[in-house]
Amino acid sequence: MVRVGVVGYGTIGKRVADAVALQDDMDLVGVVVRRYDWRASMAVRRGYKLFVSHDADLKSFASRGVEYEGTVDDLLERVDVVVDATPKGVGAKNKQLYEKHEVKAVFEGGEKHEVAGVSFIATRNYDEAYGRRYVRVVSCNTTAIGRVVGALHERIGVRKARVAIMRRAADPWESHRKGIINTVVPTLKVPSHHGPDVRSVIKDLNIVTMAAVGSHNLYHLHMGFIEFREAVSRGDVVEVLEEEPRVVLVRGSDGVAALNTLFELGRDLGRSRGDLYEIPVWEDSIKVEGSEAYLIWMTPNESNVVPDNIDAIRAISMLEKEGRKSVEKTDRTLGVLSKLY
Amino acid sequence: MVRVGVVGYGTIGKRVADAVALQDDMDLVGVVVRRYDWRASMAVRRGYKLFVSHDADLKSFASRGVEYEGTVDDLLERVDVVVDATPKGVGAKNKQLYEKHEVKAVFEGGEKHEVAGVSFIATRNYDEAYGRRYVRVVSCNTTAIGRVVGALHERIGVRKARVAIMRRAADPWESHRKGIINTVVPTLKVPSHHGPDVRSVIKDLNIVTMAAVGSHNLYHLHMGFIEFREAVSRGDVVEVLEEEPRVVLVRGSDGVAALNTLFELGRDLGRSRGDLYEIPVWEDSIKVEGSEAYLIWMTPNESNVVPDNIDAIRAISMLEKEGRKSVEKTDRTLGVLSKLY
Repeated sequence: MVRVGVVGYGTIGKRVADAVALQDDMDLVGVVVRRYDWRASMAVRRGYKLFVSHDADLKSFASRGVEYEGTVDDLLERVDVVVDATPKGVGAKNKQLYEKHEVKAVFEGGEKHEVAGVSFIATRNYDEAYGRRYVRVVSCNTTAIGRVVGALHERIGVRKARVAIMRRAADPWESHRKGIINTVVPTLKVPSHHGPDVRSVIKDLNIVTMAAVGSHNLYHLHMGFIEFREAVSRGDVVEVLEEEPRVVLVRGSDGVAALNTLFELGRDLGRSRGDLYEIPVWEDSIKVEGSEAYLIWMTPNESNVVPDNIDAIRAISMLEKEGRKSVEKTDRTLGVLSKLY
Repeated sequence: MVRVGVVGYGTIGKRVADAVALQDDMDLVGVVVRRYDWRASMAVRRGYKLFVSHDADLKSFASRGVEYEGTVDDLLERVDVVVDATPKGVGAKNKQLYEKHEVKAVFEGGEKHEVAGVSFIATRNYDEAYGRRYVRVVSCNTTAIGRVVGALHERIGVRKARVAIMRRAADPWESHRKGIINTVVPTLKVPSHHGPDVRSVIKDLNIVTMAAVGSHNLYHLHMGFIEFREAVSRGDVVEVLEEEPRVVLVRGSDGVAALNTLFELGRDLGRSRGDLYEIPVWEDSIKVEGSEAYLIWMTPNESNVVPDNIDAIRAISMLEKEGRKSVEKTDRTLGVLSKLY
């Protein structure tokens, strides 16, 4: 049983905490928050022990007469591994705490590769993270590309992948303070950082990405132009994606028309928060011409990295030697499907 | 002096009518509408004679005590050329009227290539349309790609172009009855029709396109992965686009951050309706790696085909033998710029 702490209780942290709590080989010792507000109260409701960061607003606890279990240092004394799901850049600063308390740590995609030294997508490079002290689970977009394009690369061999990303402007919970209306904002740093980030996991993948932000807050849409080393059939591509864990095929002809349809589908599945962990690829969009495939998929950005976080904990804690087995176990506990419907 | 009629007075028709009225070698005889409403009244305000289609709602005139000049047949007796800017598919039906009255016709991108037999982008294949009876000005997206990628193909030589298109959901004027909120709708017909459509003008261009519709009503955004036959420098790409008519370079570093910025820029230029005729390419987005360039541009979809319509009239009417000269004349009359700012 590995003792786990979660530092940061935002979009990713709260989902990882829930996922850890579902594992029979992990014990969720507690979560670290910065203040007591409605979000922290949700953690309490779930029975999670609250610890406070060094920069916490302690008055927010005192004014409501709420007790906390201890500080982040207290938590770190009681755990073997932390998942650091703090905002971009904070994880790098927290690393010295983890060094001091000699706990292993999983960082998220907001941190630089160098913070952990190993970037991670469970279905791609589990072995590389096995037994390491630190690992970084890459961002939602990078994970999605790593699953879809990475699978095609492993099984068929990609000569060059080109991916256009239409990002969401904000997540639902933060849409009151961040967002754009009625426009598209191109990311003028070309290629976007996603391509190099995928290569931090899949070193031999030739990939280039471009991105733009749209006027919506649900999910990212990716369009991939995937050039293979040799001619392929459409059947080959479909088969690879059908067999790939955490990738599912959906069809516009079944009424799965757009991002919002998938959002509703996630809610109908009855999962916590309506989360999707899988990358849905529109089967009707898959077209092969010679040695190139064109296809469109979606990244459920709030939740798709959650299973990878669980596998990352398992890898660095040496709870499971085989990546395939860890992925299967995680997927069973989270209810990850090979078909959404 | 060529006598011109405009059939259909919507997004394109009204703009083409205005552009025709500005030409010293063309006489705008009148426009054909289906009913008298606020839009038709705008045509009257501009001094354009109204003619009615065969399926017109004549009560809409009678109830307001407004007279019309005649029917579409009356107009066709008085013109040499019509621009058919009716909704998709109506142009093909109207063609028999044009045959009967022996008038030349310019169709729009909503019609199939076969309706005219020649598809047209003024800066690409003016000669092909010269003296023809019918010509089809391709759609906004196709025209934009034809200008940007077509120029790079002509001047450098494209091995394969891949373009991802983020379309607007509706034009501003129709946003009350059409549109999507907070989602992205992928076009599951892959490749999208834009690629083949570009090839109806630029026959030897190897191009593939994918598209999705975003939650906005201003303009389309294109991301292009342009593979050349041999290595190029960034300077080569910038130079071609800088020199290309109807293509302009803009920079995020100058504050031109997104589609809405360009919309405001169009309004500040003081043009009719704030229209942009040029395709703005973000210079900061242009990145060259080996023999491939990556770049992002915008399609001002309501207006970018307007100059091509004028040139199409000139080509089929044999008013000007040289495409370059027609383009220059059109651009002078419309105030098309080589730099927007």
